[in-house]
Amino acid sequence: MKPLGPIPAGYEPKDGELAIGGRTARELVAEAGGTPVFVYSRSHLDRRVAELRAAMPARLAIHYAVKANPWRPVLQHMAPLVEGFDIASGGELAMVVEAGIDPELVSFAGPGKRDAELEAAIAAGATLNSESEGEVRRALAIGGRIGRPPRIAIRVNPDFELRGSGMKMGGGAKPFGIDAAHVPAIARELIVAGAEWRGLHIYTGSQALDAEAIAETQGNVLDLADRLAREVDHGPLPKLNMGGGFGIPYFAGDDPVDLALVGEKLAERFAALPGTLADTDLCIELGRYLVGEAGVYLCEIVDRKESHGETYLVTDGGLHHQLAASGNFGTVVRRNYPVAIATRFGAEADDEANVVGCLCTPLDRLADKARLPRAEVGDLVAVFCAGAYGATASPAMFLGQGPARQLLV
Amino acid sequence: MKPLGPIPAGYEPKDGELAIGGRTARELVAEAGGTPVFVYSRSHLDRRVAELRAAMPARLAIHYAVKANPWRPVLQHMAPLVEGFDIASGGELAMVVEAGIDPELVSFAGPGKRDAELEAAIAAGATLNSESEGEVRRALAIGGRIGRPPRIAIRVNPDFELRGSGMKMGGGAKPFGIDAAHVPAIARELIVAGAEWRGLHIYTGSQALDAEAIAETQGNVLDLADRLAREVDHGPLPKLNMGGGFGIPYFAGDDPVDLALVGEKLAERFAALPGTLADTDLCIELGRYLVGEAGVYLCEIVDRKESHGETYLVTDGGLHHQLAASGNFGTVVRRNYPVAIATRFGAEADDEANVVGCLCTPLDRLADKARLPRAEVGDLVAVFCAGAYGATASPAMFLGQGPARQLLV
Repeated sequence: MKPLGPIPAGYEPKDGELAIGGRTARELVAEAGGTPVFVYSRSHLDRRVAELRAAMPARLAIHYAVKANPWRPVLQHMAPLVEGFDIASGGELAMVVEAGIDPELVSFAGPGKRDAELEAAIAAGATLNSESEGEVRRALAIGGRIGRPPRIAIRVNPDFELRGSGMKMGGGAKPFGIDAAHVPAIARELIVAGAEWRGLHIYTGSQALDAEAIAETQGNVLDLADRLAREVDHGPLPKLNMGGGFGIPYFAGDDPVDLALVGEKLAERFAALPGTLADTDLCIELGRYLVGEAGVYLCEIVDRKESHGETYLVTDGGLHHQLAASGNFGTVVRRNYPVAIATRFGAEADDEANVVGCLCTPLDRLADKARLPRAEVGDLVAVFCAGAYGATASPAMFLGQGPARQLLV
Repeated sequence: MKPLGPIPAGYEPKDGELAIGGRTARELVAEAGGTPVFVYSRSHLDRRVAELRAAMPARLAIHYAVKANPWRPVLQHMAPLVEGFDIASGGELAMVVEAGIDPELVSFAGPGKRDAELEAAIAAGATLNSESEGEVRRALAIGGRIGRPPRIAIRVNPDFELRGSGMKMGGGAKPFGIDAAHVPAIARELIVAGAEWRGLHIYTGSQALDAEAIAETQGNVLDLADRLAREVDHGPLPKLNMGGGFGIPYFAGDDPVDLALVGEKLAERFAALPGTLADTDLCIELGRYLVGEAGVYLCEIVDRKESHGETYLVTDGGLHHQLAASGNFGTVVRRNYPVAIATRFGAEADDEANVVGCLCTPLDRLADKARLPRAEVGDLVAVFCAGAYGATASPAMFLGQGPARQLLV
């Protein structure tokens, strides 16, 4: 038996089924028109932002990192809840604009911005989080050509990392940002060239659960921003994107981030900011943390079979929608996500089964040796923590399958 | 420095650039309309099939496993070269039919076949490689309902595996096929029920480079097929799909499969087949082996930057098209695929650089610490072995990027 990850708070049974937004799993599938389907919960999105607001200093703005889930109804639901949107491509810029979001609220990070993407962002008034000296100079040239001074923040490659983060994006050689030592010179260059100076973006890692580590890193980010602002020597820093890093529990033994602790430590720092940061717009950018637990992936069992004494529940879903849950995306050792039988939600776990996808590859696993209520063909399987990096971070066209349905309730 | 994988045979420089089908990399990009682009080589496809024909016994039919690359021009190029097509979904059935391929040449394997997929395949006259007793019975019921006796082969979960294969699909509990011990009973059941008995499908693994291991496994497959045919006791076996397993070299130190050795051993076995297999249609199914080395992924360098003493070449491509090359698809330890600077092909490797994609994630790596000719913004990068499990086995929509262009030359 292998443990399953913890089911996020706020998912309850109704008539013996998992319910989301007051509808049972079967009602949701009927509404969507079939399986597989990603169901996103408005109340979970609202609650998560409210919890953050309650814990964090009022001064801290919250940005949504679109890459976690760029589906238009989700973007439109998030729009009134957050102060900004962080994008990672020209494609995401188009998605944000099509969702009716003001591009002046948008920051664009990413190490491989093409000229056409830079031009679209500059023309729309978005801020560039520039990743290299070369990119800054390309942006200045494009801004000159189209007669729009670019809005430029510098993404910093810091000399420290976020301890315990799932993905490290600082500390040593990295493709992201400009090494801290080289930031002041290029900042002065862009200011002299007439760009709108938008401050710094310091992103150190993602998917950390340790509140002490997050707080320590936020302190390091503020210290680094102060030091760089003094070295740039162009007055107070206009804006500082402090990055994200807040993780969600996926696996057995994971605990949620202690938000209160992060908020208290940040409030202490905010109460004693140096002059360089006293009037700075301060924000964090969160993707997975805002939307991850708000999503559930539902698929249907199409076969139940035995092989050499093990039971396999074969579903019509799989890694083509759930690459990370299958253990094939940046994972060394596969562990089970939170998974349940949605049509027997809360029933006694009296069976042990492997839950697999429909793809003809041994990589397509959704749960290994899981204790679950005994399920039959026609039952629905729920994979939780599916709101972020699910639909768009999976190879939807693999083996001719195509994308899943999506529903916001 | 980390070694690069071996560049497949048949790629030569022309005017200092990588040439495919007689056109230089820049000409190919211009023809495709930009980067990133997958370029597939007709002459490589032809040569690979010809090499196989020359080495294998004439009696052995060759099937193409569509999942490796289902792009229509590739399917249409393969159609006159092979005797059959193996599919893994209803989506792939539609692709094959749209490419003008006779569905009677098609076999459909896969553990999670939905009723609608079974019905489409039965109606089209495709053979089902059935994965469970439940699936056989669903197929019989659907065939009865639509008045078409289904064509059914049994996919066997063998008790042995393919030694050294990248993915094992036999030996112990598996979601694929029916345990060998249970095959005779279900075969007799479907024959009695009036289905067209199409024999056995025994797939043991994929991506093996050791010819001795492949030959040994093919021997085991023939032995198992003989034993099962005798136990089914319905005369000679009509058909045996012996699976695939032939790998291609991706990494430094990998050597190509010794085709001659596999062919010799198979010829010895074919010369002494038991009565159960004397008149059997014998085939192998290959995907990656037929198309993998025929594809090259070209992307453009959009930034060249230094960080803490390391050089990064940032391209407009990445893991959204090259998930496996990035080391994030069924890989434990990331190693470099064969990668080159396509616009300086054959030039002296006088630089060391990390080649990364444009995505804002540390997972997006195409080559680590690689010895390459010094490259600048605007140069093209080639990732080889991109013909199989590239375009459709990668999360094309990740970070708003979208699919790559494709070209067959």
